[in-house]
Amino acid sequence: MSSIERTIQVSFKQRVFFTQDVFGLSNPLLKDVLQNGENKQFPKVLVVLDESLHQAQPDLSRKIESYLASLGTSLVCPPMVLQGGERVKNSYFHVSDIQSNIDRYHIDRHSYVIAIGGGALLDLVGLAAATAHRGVRHIRIPTTTLSQDDSGVGVKNGINAFGKKNFIGTFAVPFAVINDFEMLASLPARDKRAGYIEAVKVALIRDTDFFEWIEREACNLRVFQPQAMQRLIYRCAELHLNHIASSGDPFEMGSARPLDFGHWAAHKLEQLSEYKIRHGEAVAVGIALDVIYARRMGYLDARSTGRILNLIDLLGFELYANELLHVDSQGDLMILKGLEEFREHLGGRLTITLLKGVGEGFEVHEMNDSVVVESIQELQRLHTERALRLPVEIQSPLLQNL
Amino acid sequence: MSSIERTIQVSFKQRVFFTQDVFGLSNPLLKDVLQNGENKQFPKVLVVLDESLHQAQPDLSRKIESYLASLGTSLVCPPMVLQGGERVKNSYFHVSDIQSNIDRYHIDRHSYVIAIGGGALLDLVGLAAATAHRGVRHIRIPTTTLSQDDSGVGVKNGINAFGKKNFIGTFAVPFAVINDFEMLASLPARDKRAGYIEAVKVALIRDTDFFEWIEREACNLRVFQPQAMQRLIYRCAELHLNHIASSGDPFEMGSARPLDFGHWAAHKLEQLSEYKIRHGEAVAVGIALDVIYARRMGYLDARSTGRILNLIDLLGFELYANELLHVDSQGDLMILKGLEEFREHLGGRLTITLLKGVGEGFEVHEMNDSVVVESIQELQRLHTERALRLPVEIQSPLLQNL
Repeated sequence: MSSIERTIQVSFKQRVFFTQDVFGLSNPLLKDVLQNGENKQFPKVLVVLDESLHQAQPDLSRKIESYLASLGTSLVCPPMVLQGGERVKNSYFHVSDIQSNIDRYHIDRHSYVIAIGGGALLDLVGLAAATAHRGVRHIRIPTTTLSQDDSGVGVKNGINAFGKKNFIGTFAVPFAVINDFEMLASLPARDKRAGYIEAVKVALIRDTDFFEWIEREACNLRVFQPQAMQRLIYRCAELHLNHIASSGDPFEMGSARPLDFGHWAAHKLEQLSEYKIRHGEAVAVGIALDVIYARRMGYLDARSTGRILNLIDLLGFELYANELLHVDSQGDLMILKGLEEFREHLGGRLTITLLKGVGEGFEVHEMNDSVVVESIQELQRLHTERALRLPVEIQSPLLQNL
Repeated sequence: MSSIERTIQVSFKQRVFFTQDVFGLSNPLLKDVLQNGENKQFPKVLVVLDESLHQAQPDLSRKIESYLASLGTSLVCPPMVLQGGERVKNSYFHVSDIQSNIDRYHIDRHSYVIAIGGGALLDLVGLAAATAHRGVRHIRIPTTTLSQDDSGVGVKNGINAFGKKNFIGTFAVPFAVINDFEMLASLPARDKRAGYIEAVKVALIRDTDFFEWIEREACNLRVFQPQAMQRLIYRCAELHLNHIASSGDPFEMGSARPLDFGHWAAHKLEQLSEYKIRHGEAVAVGIALDVIYARRMGYLDARSTGRILNLIDLLGFELYANELLHVDSQGDLMILKGLEEFREHLGGRLTITLLKGVGEGFEVHEMNDSVVVESIQELQRLHTERALRLPVEIQSPLLQNL
């Protein structure tokens, strides 16, 4: 018996650009990205566009075409308009549809597939681009707060299968990410808000200063004051990239995934609600649950718990969802299955990030089911009490006496 | 406008083990690989098996089950038996089928999917394993000469789509590759031989000594003498791994792919023959074509050309296929479309590896269509002359006077 062993090193560049009006004729950013310092004709471009953005900004398609025409290149076909939101990820059909255009219009590994939309659309297009010709150049233009500050700047893509979120996907570093703040202007409040929670999350596990900044800016954020939103998105994206580049495990071959704080329950809630609950909304409930759990287990003090729940509430999130109490035909709480599904997606030992304090994440390898249930009941009580109180805007901090 | 840029470094270990009788109860190799130095219960294992191997070695499934049982673990279900050969890659169905079992039997990122078969089956299972949970641990046990010395030890997987070979796939480093020489015993001569050509190929572009060794061993290889075959497989796999680990572009983000010498025509021939021509057989014709082309273009001397064609012939390969002269409805030679398809799969500029001499590959960026056609015609003449001569075994070297 003998063997040959070699180390394969692969180096990727992850680039996130921040701009305004990316398709404005005087904006050189996308031109420079497409040209890529290569002295050649402009390459082919296929664009996939989120339907809700297409409806909210009906002249966007024409603007994209004019921009590319001004560079002497053109789209290989009109932008493909696909439904946004998590449900678009429920079948392989759209992946195949995009790949069929990659084939038909001869998009090669040096051509571009540009996805413009929310996180779900980016996940879907990312998978199609990463697996056609084993990877064509893919530019992401995220158009929701959540995709600009979190999912869109990461290295994952995927679709749902067998009733499980992101069951099929790859790790693939996009060619570039372009965060255009103006894309957010036409969003409903719900989608403007949803991304805040990933900033709260990463601040809670990594960066106390950022958490305190969010606390100070909470009222501005609540009314979607542009400068506060931009600052939040920038810092959250930066912390995310720092993590990917420095964690030592960007493609998750180990068992830990610290950035998934609050996510075990969130993924299950999304699925139980048939994706009516947005990812960010589900994460808000998931964090609230794990924060109360940590207090009940003695890891986190009551003051920090109150402070965190208060901030989530101030930003306009619900802390509770009825799906937390859904039971299966045996009468078992379905949310608890989320723990095993979360473990299985990553493999190895169950690893859940919890908090010792604001800015101080740590890991546990088991969760006490009955304390999870007590935490859910506590969230439910808080929710009921809140419904009986005054609107939060004119209240003193809601949960200060927890 | 501002931007954040980070470098993401990912380090993989590519390991190829050489053994005999991998499922023999006294062979510790697979046990050690599965245990992976992790002090834990044996993980779950899903096995996918090539149908032709299953038929040729009908007790193999039972042997696999006994081996795993002896480790205190077991298969999550009986081995999935799938048709081997390139045609199994023509639909997404089998990928989905394997992923459905990954879901059903809770194979997680620390569980194993073992594929046992030829290159096509490994390509298919590799894609399923690489995209379920964004990558579960995948062990390849190649069972043909070609997959043991070339495709099975690489980092690619894929299926065919839109009439194009490997249109959908990923780059993914398998957890381990195990080359079990006994797997080759039940192969038909055709499949024992096909892998020789990749050794000739890599020797021609990289390693004169290896080429001369193959020349010396040609008669032993022709009759499938085990020691000669083992040596050829080992060295070819080693050169392949050295290339992947040291090329600086293991995931092919550039435009060159030196290991694909002779492959532009080969991929097209496989497709034109509806995969009746095996990959290795197509590469033999592809190399013969590009060698004559190089001579006609003045890159390669006549003596080296003759020596190369002679070796390919001595090893038992055909140098010509009728598909080289297939025309489309416009009367154009279809093989010439292979050039653009080859360029497009890799992207960027057309880059074809040719030879200056034995062991000396170099790159060109255009091919002269009429010289390609003349080279095809020359191959056809050689083929006709050969048919009129004595069997090659009792001849003096056939092509020495080229």
